[in-house]
Amino acid sequence: MNKIDVDLSVAYRLLNPGCVLLVSVGDGTRDNVFAATWNMPVYDEPAFCAFACAKGHHSYSFIEATGEVVLNVPDLSLVDAVYGCGSTSGRDIDKFARFGLRRRAGRLVRAPLIDQCVASLECRVEQTIDVHDSALLLLKVVRAEACSAHFRSGRWQFDRGLGLIHHVSGAQFCVSDRMVEARKP
Amino acid sequence: MNKIDVDLSVAYRLLNPGCVLLVSVGDGTRDNVFAATWNMPVYDEPAFCAFACAKGHHSYSFIEATGEVVLNVPDLSLVDAVYGCGSTSGRDIDKFARFGLRRRAGRLVRAPLIDQCVASLECRVEQTIDVHDSALLLLKVVRAEACSAHFRSGRWQFDRGLGLIHHVSGAQFCVSDRMVEARKP
Repeated sequence: MNKIDVDLSVAYRLLNPGCVLLVSVGDGTRDNVFAATWNMPVYDEPAFCAFACAKGHHSYSFIEATGEVVLNVPDLSLVDAVYGCGSTSGRDIDKFARFGLRRRAGRLVRAPLIDQCVASLECRVEQTIDVHDSALLLLKVVRAEACSAHFRSGRWQFDRGLGLIHHVSGAQFCVSDRMVEARKP
Repeated sequence: MNKIDVDLSVAYRLLNPGCVLLVSVGDGTRDNVFAATWNMPVYDEPAFCAFACAKGHHSYSFIEATGEVVLNVPDLSLVDAVYGCGSTSGRDIDKFARFGLRRRAGRLVRAPLIDQCVASLECRVEQTIDVHDSALLLLKVVRAEACSAHFRSGRWQFDRGLGLIHHVSGAQFCVSDRMVEARKP
């Protein structure tokens, strides 16, 4: 899959459709990956986004230590890996190996990118808001890349077989693989 | 459309797929509605969610004054209304009338529910986090309802023609209308 750098002023469009994400963390020696349904863009220029993370998660200690994450957008071909990453713990297994996810080095963060994902956003934690025993993490996007076949002219295109996945409940995901154009008011 | 009350412990599942929302605001005398792509659940019990809102928006003054919003989930039949609500201002027109949206009174908030939407969450603002000239609003869900045909057994079901819409860019939305079940790891 050929990847292109995405201008940060349109990086929010990588997250606009509300897909489930694979979030990767790492300190250069150890790493982990987990699924994050609860994510959204927050601001366009400069590019900010947010996601909610239980503080008890194995990955949270990496986020606290490094202040870095990579948000990766999986497509339909990775749905089993996404569910696997969301229902196992990195305390017990190497999820990259177990679910066949290939690491690629980030440019500006130590957390790895996931090679098979259709987009990746390298991010730094700007602020943490406590919500009970979870953290609402406000992130600054410092670099973004996407698959050149599916992200063209600054937005997702569905004419070459892109299928995005959205979490419903448990092992169930809905699939968006076609686009409609709304009528101008 | 028949609506049922949704137990607040599963209200986050109404937002899980990452749909574009119609957010309604009102003080009992005046009201407005706008489109919000940038939203997510934050916590399950108690139910919290978040969305990002430009402070310059006409609706923001209602949110500041009342501390209340209703998050409404539109389906594919409302895509023109969603784009219309997102690209016009309530300063100029009555968007409910202009886009054929029917108001229904909320039970616990003064902002109106949108009758044709497949779900509505009545919310109170718990915290506001400034991000440049936008507000990241942390909301507590105080009541939720959904269409009984499409939200059954505590989750969205796609076997009766449900089509959810997700924002791509401008007038373009992608549609999720089928579900896949991931393999257990």
